Amino acid sequence: MKKLNVGMIGYGFMGRTHSNAFRKVTNFFDVPLQPVLKTICARNEDRAKAFAAKWGYEGIETDWRKVVESPDIDVIDIASPNDTHREIAIAAAKAGKMVMCEKPLGRNAAESEEMVDAVEKAGVANTVWYNYRRVPAVTLAKQLIDEGRLGRIFHYRAKFLQDWTISTELPQGGEGLWRLDVNVAGSGVTGDLLAHCIDTAMWLNGGIEEVSAVTETFIKERKHNLSGKVEPVGIDDASLFLARFNNGSLATFEATRYARGHKALYTLEINGEHASIFWDLHDLHRLQYFDHKDEGKLRGWRSLHITDGDHPYMKNWWVPGLQIGYEHTFIHQVADFLQAAAGGKGVAPTFRDGLATDHVTDAVLESARTRAWTKVK
Amino acid sequence: MKKLNVGMIGYGFMGRTHSNAFRKVTNFFDVPLQPVLKTICARNEDRAKAFAAKWGYEGIETDWRKVVESPDIDVIDIASPNDTHREIAIAAAKAGKMVMCEKPLGRNAAESEEMVDAVEKAGVANTVWYNYRRVPAVTLAKQLIDEGRLGRIFHYRAKFLQDWTISTELPQGGEGLWRLDVNVAGSGVTGDLLAHCIDTAMWLNGGIEEVSAVTETFIKERKHNLSGKVEPVGIDDASLFLARFNNGSLATFEATRYARGHKALYTLEINGEHASIFWDLHDLHRLQYFDHKDEGKLRGWRSLHITDGDHPYMKNWWVPGLQIGYEHTFIHQVADFLQAAAGGKGVAPTFRDGLATDHVTDAVLESARTRAWTKVK
Amino acid sequence: MKKLNVGMIGYGFMGRTHSNAFRKVTNFFDVPLQPVLKTICARNEDRAKAFAAKWGYEGIETDWRKVVESPDIDVIDIASPNDTHREIAIAAAKAGKMVMCEKPLGRNAAESEEMVDAVEKAGVANTVWYNYRRVPAVTLAKQLIDEGRLGRIFHYRAKFLQDWTISTELPQGGEGLWRLDVNVAGSGVTGDLLAHCIDTAMWLNGGIEEVSAVTETFIKERKHNLSGKVEPVGIDDASLFLARFNNGSLATFEATRYARGHKALYTLEINGEHASIFWDLHDLHRLQYFDHKDEGKLRGWRSLHITDGDHPYMKNWWVPGLQIGYEHTFIHQVADFLQAAAGGKGVAPTFRDGLATDHVTDAVLESARTRAWTKVK
Amino acid sequence: MKKLNVGMIGYGFMGRTHSNAFRKVTNFFDVPLQPVLKTICARNEDRAKAFAAKWGYEGIETDWRKVVESPDIDVIDIASPNDTHREIAIAAAKAGKMVMCEKPLGRNAAESEEMVDAVEKAGVANTVWYNYRRVPAVTLAKQLIDEGRLGRIFHYRAKFLQDWTISTELPQGGEGLWRLDVNVAGSGVTGDLLAHCIDTAMWLNGGIEEVSAVTETFIKERKHNLSGKVEPVGIDDASLFLARFNNGSLATFEATRYARGHKALYTLEINGEHASIFWDLHDLHRLQYFDHKDEGKLRGWRSLHITDGDHPYMKNWWVPGLQIGYEHTFIHQVADFLQAAAGGKGVAPTFRDGLATDHVTDAVLESARTRAWTKVK
Repeated sequence: MKKLNVGMIGYGFMGRTHSNAFRKVTNFFDVPLQPVLKTICARNEDRAKAFAAKWGYEGIETDWRKVVESPDIDVIDIASPNDTHREIAIAAAKAGKMVMCEKPLGRNAAESEEMVDAVEKAGVANTVWYNYRRVPAVTLAKQLIDEGRLGRIFHYRAKFLQDWTISTELPQGGEGLWRLDVNVAGSGVTGDLLAHCIDTAMWLNGGIEEVSAVTETFIKERKHNLSGKVEPVGIDDASLFLARFNNGSLATFEATRYARGHKALYTLEINGEHASIFWDLHDLHRLQYFDHKDEGKLRGWRSLHITDGDHPYMKNWWVPGLQIGYEHTFIHQVADFLQAAAGGKGVAPTFRDGLATDHVTDAVLESARTRAWTKVK
Repeated sequence: MKKLNVGMIGYGFMGRTHSNAFRKVTNFFDVPLQPVLKTICARNEDRAKAFAAKWGYEGIETDWRKVVESPDIDVIDIASPNDTHREIAIAAAKAGKMVMCEKPLGRNAAESEEMVDAVEKAGVANTVWYNYRRVPAVTLAKQLIDEGRLGRIFHYRAKFLQDWTISTELPQGGEGLWRLDVNVAGSGVTGDLLAHCIDTAMWLNGGIEEVSAVTETFIKERKHNLSGKVEPVGIDDASLFLARFNNGSLATFEATRYARGHKALYTLEINGEHASIFWDLHDLHRLQYFDHKDEGKLRGWRSLHITDGDHPYMKNWWVPGLQIGYEHTFIHQVADFLQAAAGGKGVAPTFRDGLATDHVTDAVLESARTRAWTKVK
Repeated sequence: MKKLNVGMIGYGFMGRTHSNAFRKVTNFFDVPLQPVLKTICARNEDRAKAFAAKWGYEGIETDWRKVVESPDIDVIDIASPNDTHREIAIAAAKAGKMVMCEKPLGRNAAESEEMVDAVEKAGVANTVWYNYRRVPAVTLAKQLIDEGRLGRIFHYRAKFLQDWTISTELPQGGEGLWRLDVNVAGSGVTGDLLAHCIDTAMWLNGGIEEVSAVTETFIKERKHNLSGKVEPVGIDDASLFLARFNNGSLATFEATRYARGHKALYTLEINGEHASIFWDLHDLHRLQYFDHKDEGKLRGWRSLHITDGDHPYMKNWWVPGLQIGYEHTFIHQVADFLQAAAGGKGVAPTFRDGLATDHVTDAVLESARTRAWTKVK
Repeated sequence: MKKLNVGMIGYGFMGRTHSNAFRKVTNFFDVPLQPVLKTICARNEDRAKAFAAKWGYEGIETDWRKVVESPDIDVIDIASPNDTHREIAIAAAKAGKMVMCEKPLGRNAAESEEMVDAVEKAGVANTVWYNYRRVPAVTLAKQLIDEGRLGRIFHYRAKFLQDWTISTELPQGGEGLWRLDVNVAGSGVTGDLLAHCIDTAMWLNGGIEEVSAVTETFIKERKHNLSGKVEPVGIDDASLFLARFNNGSLATFEATRYARGHKALYTLEINGEHASIFWDLHDLHRLQYFDHKDEGKLRGWRSLHITDGDHPYMKNWWVPGLQIGYEHTFIHQVADFLQAAAGGKGVAPTFRDGLATDHVTDAVLESARTRAWTKVK
């Protein structure tokens, strides 16, 4: 089989999920390209070596530019913090590499726009790792919508609730905590969590016309791990918005890291004229479905256990009744990417799709600042 | 409207549920007879008076024989402890009264047989208060089975789990605790809880052919409230059995008062060739339904919220989405009884149905004693 | 026992729930006053008679003024459509009657203000029927908050979802459909459903400072039952808003009659520093509770089955494990009212509390009109 | 790192789960041995090659004896049908190889006893793949029991429900269907499904003293894929039993392939004096826990989302809130095995543990045949 040499930038949480996906995909999916874990790049050489040993990378680098320029590399996978995405992606595109980028694409739409320009100008296959589109239950939701089963859509609601930053003792910045540092992350939960909700929402329900938002930083100052000093917190701890979609439906969106009792509770619901759908990341292998066309006395929410062979991606896994988990969503994205990449294409969500999400998050942050309804660009 | 004068024997928990049913039925159901709370009978005069004041009984009695013989009374409702059922019911039948009897009918099938003989010989309307048949969700289950939606039945399973007798400090016998006194109750959980499970099971799935059972008394001695002494416990604390129904399906049944965390968890499930049903008393207003004839990728357990107008009994209550509770099952049984009684008939479960359940509980206790599969009479 | 003579205005859905509450309360609660169903008032004499027969009212009236002025009446209970509340309540207060009024208090805060003035000036006991405060699970939530178990509050979210007006064939106005007629109802889901959410929210979490709202009328024209003509629909079909509470917490609120699959799904969640609470009207006998102070590996959402004797109101009902339903909330409100009324007082939510809710719903509607964040008066 | 060369016998469903475990373990766990996928053995050479290519085996074999005798191989993993377990395991032990065997160990206890003798005599590390012990939620259950949180145990109940053989069209025997051929499988659901339930039960609750069982073959004849003829079905389609554990607790067990709506619903519940536990394979990342020592009004079943770092095995995976699935249980068993194997030991469940389960399944089948309570050897 033809090889696809991977240059991975970043070895954190996302470096692990992506590496796992590349390593496993051919065990479960028939794909036209065999990924090869060629190079892992990290500024710290010891960590890069340890990571390479753990995951079977053939070599390491401490300077991402060398990876980008290496003739051995076919695809650059950007799994490093948000403030590095733009520069690496543009360089990779210029070097003619395919580019896979962890979400959000840039720290804001301006950065993302440059990135879109770069990959489109270079004509390289690209994708953004909004992995939740490829939870089988969510992919099934998309199928049901595309089949017209819901009819006219009235309502959409999504939330992404966590509780890991409630303690005032938690510092900001540095190893593992850069998501609290606004300079690195770009924003708080808006870019980290709402971006996921928005990407799925626009995939399922089309474009968002305008938003009214409010954000809050509950803990105003935290010690910064790099400076060692107590500094103002620049990110949003919570972000809520109302939205109107282009199709006329209304929505509530909410993300926070202050919802005690919830670790990663991403839920979405869509109410249509004929049917409704609900999904929940804490039980990601289930989809709730209500169909008004069912016989009256037997109408009810169906709890679909998404483990059957006729559910998206599931014939490649085990047998009915046996569930998969979080990491599999990345494998699905790699499988789809390899299929497309063999023909020189990327897969949705592409950089252009990632930019669309950033236009919404920008509008959300602007609306929160201006306290006004804000049109999405 | 024609009146139906009620003579109530017993003022305990069941005296309350029955009195409430008689008082409310005409507010919600169009029935041909208007129940009148004529007489409450209890050995303790003060308590009888207090109960009469609370519920609006016109008069009191301390000797049930006087109630039974009174020309003012149309129906005798037996809500007193199990050891009194036989004598009162037979006297009432002989006096030509309609008879409603709290379950189980007798303390054993021999007692129940005499009671059946009495009411059938007298030709008086009768019923046993196996109230769970008239939970709307359970009644709907019966409809679905009768409509043939389940096809051939393979499995039935029922359990009734409580945890209120785990403490060794709990005494047996006397006020509120007669269910622990084998002389009064006849048996422990077998007659108290399994009897409910068996009544519903035979209604939904037909007769039971044979059983293999085991019982246990976890706490062997308890203080007796009447004697004041520590005495051996004669009841079964837990009772489990395997069964084969006449239709060839297999079953597990279990009841216990030692299942920590469960207060009144009566659950039943029935698995048929085409469809399955699950119900749970702790969420009695829901029925779980799975239909294999649903389209493949959309097959799932439906959680039916039994509050719509096309669900059994529900058009008489509130509006869709608003749930009823435990007490309403008794009102439904009164409503059905009044309808039938106007024509001189009783309603199922009749005394004869109650006897059928007692034949099963007798077989269960015998099987537990003999450690052998036992045919049901 | 001292009597409390009730004059009921209105015989619709709410006339039934209130009448049931008055009829049952003394069977279950020890209260200092015995309600007497004295007079039912309805414009249609036949219907009034039928209702009186069904519920045991001693007499009927077709002119509410006569009831208000009758020396036989102690309390006026207003269960008629929203456009009648103001006039009746003010007249009743002037006549020195206690007043119980179905929610919302007025069609808007201006009407409600007059009503508050009237009852406060007259010094008569009063209450508004925001019944969901007295769902035992919700009352328990209030206890837990008052005990300080949640700590600082970060988030509140509530929604009330229905689906009964999706059909374009449904007319507006007239018998049973006045909730779609803006002149009668005052507003659509804002006053009908959001008002419930707001009342509970302010009880649990304090005052609301400001809101940003959006409303929608999905079906713009419907036949009007009174005129027989197709007319513009004046009510809001859906109403969503963001809010900031006085305590700094952020909230989303949503109500709609276009959420396919939901009949009366009122849910609320509150996230505090130490603990969180979730409740759902479709399973009203349960409360979900998460306590971060639990031991780490055993932290989880507890599903509390609110049927134990130490849960609010529950010792008055059945035994642990046996659930009550919707209608019981009204009985609890009557029980509390009778307790207070014996001392000449009303109970919360009083008319003044009802006005506070109307200030929020007014702000919501204004915000939706002006597309701006709006301070609550 | 030291290598551990794996010789895999069998390439079916279990060959995949085991291969995946060996391939992934070192990416997530720090273990003292690095597994090497050395040889895959299958009778059909083309399939062996395809499987080797898919999973990265270095070589193939079509005769298992060659693998067993090869000096290149450290551990033999038996993932072939049940009728091959005994012979391969004994040969492997004699050749001094470590042995991992898919469950059930033998087709009956007699076979298993020979296997135990062989590995114990040879002193080779061994284990049986009862993977469900290493679902993190189940491992946590074991911890809680060992910590004494449940107190005296009263009840255990387990069931394993499937529905994949309801169609009469399904043939028996041959590729993918050997589980319906009694000669290959040894028994039906008793050895296939109940064996899982029994292994976990004895791990959590100790030995089983005696059983009373019933089995059924609902479809008596099926076409045999190898003979091409309709032949009697020799396996049990359903198997139910009552049990008494050595600790005095009572149990119900049930397995079937005729429970419409359930794909792999393995559930277990254990009720102790102080606390209870419930688990369900269809939501394997959750554990339900009830603790009576909780404050009265706040007692409820806790739904533990087993994704935190202090839950068994979970610190090696992702971040809190993100669930793992079925395949991970095998990785956990490999991780534990590698740890032990470095010191020359196997891990529980060992062959001796596997034999104990077979003694119970033998007793179940004998009890069903004799219709008598049967002691477990």
